[in-house]
Amino acid sequence: MTKKILKPARLDYHDHSFRQQLEHLLTWENVSDDKVHSTVKDIITTVRKRGDGALLDYSRRFDRVSASSMKELTVSQQQLQDALDAIPDEQRKALEIAAARIRSYHKRQVLESWTCKERSGTKLGQKVQPMDRVGLYVPGGQATYPSSVLMNAIPAHVAGVEEIIMMVPTPDGVINDMVLAAAALAGVHKVFTVGGAQAIAALAYGTETVPRVDKIVGPGNIYVATAKREVFGQVGIDMIAGPSEILVVCDGLTDPDWIAMDLFSQAEHDEDAQAILVSDDLEFLHEVDDCMNHLVHELERREIIKASINKRGALIHVPNMKAACDVVNHIAPEHLELSVANPEALLPDIRHAGAIFMGRHTAEALGDYCAGPNHVLPTSGTARFSSPLGVYDFQKRSSLIHFSDKGASEMGKVASVLARGESLTAHARSAEFRIKK
Amino acid sequence: MTKKILKPARLDYHDHSFRQQLEHLLTWENVSDDKVHSTVKDIITTVRKRGDGALLDYSRRFDRVSASSMKELTVSQQQLQDALDAIPDEQRKALEIAAARIRSYHKRQVLESWTCKERSGTKLGQKVQPMDRVGLYVPGGQATYPSSVLMNAIPAHVAGVEEIIMMVPTPDGVINDMVLAAAALAGVHKVFTVGGAQAIAALAYGTETVPRVDKIVGPGNIYVATAKREVFGQVGIDMIAGPSEILVVCDGLTDPDWIAMDLFSQAEHDEDAQAILVSDDLEFLHEVDDCMNHLVHELERREIIKASINKRGALIHVPNMKAACDVVNHIAPEHLELSVANPEALLPDIRHAGAIFMGRHTAEALGDYCAGPNHVLPTSGTARFSSPLGVYDFQKRSSLIHFSDKGASEMGKVASVLARGESLTAHARSAEFRIKK
Repeated sequence: MTKKILKPARLDYHDHSFRQQLEHLLTWENVSDDKVHSTVKDIITTVRKRGDGALLDYSRRFDRVSASSMKELTVSQQQLQDALDAIPDEQRKALEIAAARIRSYHKRQVLESWTCKERSGTKLGQKVQPMDRVGLYVPGGQATYPSSVLMNAIPAHVAGVEEIIMMVPTPDGVINDMVLAAAALAGVHKVFTVGGAQAIAALAYGTETVPRVDKIVGPGNIYVATAKREVFGQVGIDMIAGPSEILVVCDGLTDPDWIAMDLFSQAEHDEDAQAILVSDDLEFLHEVDDCMNHLVHELERREIIKASINKRGALIHVPNMKAACDVVNHIAPEHLELSVANPEALLPDIRHAGAIFMGRHTAEALGDYCAGPNHVLPTSGTARFSSPLGVYDFQKRSSLIHFSDKGASEMGKVASVLARGESLTAHARSAEFRIKK
Repeated sequence: MTKKILKPARLDYHDHSFRQQLEHLLTWENVSDDKVHSTVKDIITTVRKRGDGALLDYSRRFDRVSASSMKELTVSQQQLQDALDAIPDEQRKALEIAAARIRSYHKRQVLESWTCKERSGTKLGQKVQPMDRVGLYVPGGQATYPSSVLMNAIPAHVAGVEEIIMMVPTPDGVINDMVLAAAALAGVHKVFTVGGAQAIAALAYGTETVPRVDKIVGPGNIYVATAKREVFGQVGIDMIAGPSEILVVCDGLTDPDWIAMDLFSQAEHDEDAQAILVSDDLEFLHEVDDCMNHLVHELERREIIKASINKRGALIHVPNMKAACDVVNHIAPEHLELSVANPEALLPDIRHAGAIFMGRHTAEALGDYCAGPNHVLPTSGTARFSSPLGVYDFQKRSSLIHFSDKGASEMGKVASVLARGESLTAHARSAEFRIKK
């Protein structure tokens, strides 16, 4: 028998300290480091002051890339197309299918403008427009994910953003063809091979070469995340993501090997990732435990999986599916798998989850690549109040108010009373000017 | 002749340094104070540790309110109703009309869930749900605005939020009946008379009495704003607002007194507020300048208006309406008035504005109270990437993915290729398990 190296926590819903144990399991605080913070502030100030020159310096220092002008740090549309032509046929086809499905799903999210007319002739409405220009950060080196380029750029492209600018560092000058190919398919307009906090600063404030954007999205290391937080307000940003999580709810009738591998597909992301299985079948929890301990040895990323499962993994026994949904709503997981016979029946009780994978065949990994919905999802319980990345994140609204003479006269009286109640008499008089005598 | 006390800046679009002058005019940085920051962090830690006890202590210290239990800091539904009955009839009617119009407009913003089915039997969709619980901060003392209660609470109520909790400080025990009346009309569920950073901490983390919420909205002083920024991530927050702004575009044919008063209706908010007039009629700019200098003397808040106009106000001459729209899009104003004969004709060229007030009769002040659209709008140029507060800010989405056996088998192959391309083999194997042999 193989050695049992995985020891996920075991929790029981009926245990009197269950809530406490669960809280302890979920605890994860993003420790902000003063040193990182001051380095990032410094980089932002320098980029604002010195522009392109600062970007060239930082690329030399951090990525060991010696360029004498920004032209050398710019990837042309031709190079993107060349990368698409250079990758193996099988990968190109897979990328194309994924891109098409993501595009088709996201098209359904487009928000439309509307207006309505009142009897007085007054018109009200909301005008929805895409942002002008958006920045997409893509990490370089090991963790360069073409799927992430598709997931971040396609919604912006579907929204109608005129200019999508990608920043991707090339440590030691190495660039990933799959990433450039994905950029070509996703409709990225410009690519600069600049990374780190300096890339974020350039996008937020602009340089001689890099145009200032309205919003910055995409994952990154702690320097990138800190820089995004710092420039928030100057530009829009997406959510700062925590470690990836999966919560699987199973009735005990799915192949335990499948469930074990589904848990691993999150655990392999990084040591802080969290994989939790909830079931009303205690015997099944034991089986999955065994399968995990058996399967882990075959996997390339077993050391990461081991760290993740032993630190943050858990098998939770619940008395019934109602209790399972209660656990789900308490955790508000990024990924939720409902690996049960009739997932539709549970849906009304699910209040919080980033994405819901329904039925035994819907592996979470399908959602990471090619199901269609976005894989950028709210982590760390933020599904209580936030949503998957979508087209709506690249659109913005303006209220429209067009009063007729008659409408302005009627409503001027109301506004006048309320403004005077708040002692704002210039407000009141501005409204009163439009009251018909 | 009355003394000329207002001296708004004069800018000309054709001036070679126009862009620089405009940038200078718009500059406004929210200076974050280390002392405020450490005070706020301290308050949050104390509330997390000591709960209700800390709230009672801080209320004693900051608001000079001595309560021995949270019950004394709780306003009952009956008290809200009593306040509604106590206010003068005219004010009650005005509040009711405003609330009804705001509700009716916001109902059009409700997002709906959707699903679609593919030929393989695979179902995709997005489930939209309201947040469970939302906190609304309302400033106390001088700047207590009932209109702000309506604008923040009604969208949450329309979204279907189960519990809307209002926090309003009562310095020296004074409470504003109009604010409580507005809470009754807006559908607020619970009110605690607690303010400052301690109110935000209580909403974000919960105490014995105050339930933890999912999102916090509403204006506040620098302590409240800093606390909101600090708890962001633990809960959702709305935008941190900068000073209020209005940009009026006029063809020179609106009564200059009206335009002067419209500019004042923003300027009277505070000394940092910004009021700008853009016109292609130079003579009209002079006229409005005269009217402002004439009218200002009649106004209660003239000292604030004087500070605001002389520090940040401007009259901008442009050659034509195309140039006016260019200025608008550069500024991305919170409030935009198109005081022209045919505002519809300009609309396609307006890219960025929080709310657009169209035609000579649509005073911006109407939008502050009773037009229907929200008065919580993106400030300081953030209309480039953000939207008015709306029902959508209190709803969140979950992706729905339900693969058929056949769909999972087909897409499993695609996911496998892409996952292996990213060296994530547990992802690949999880998908491969579902491929039919």
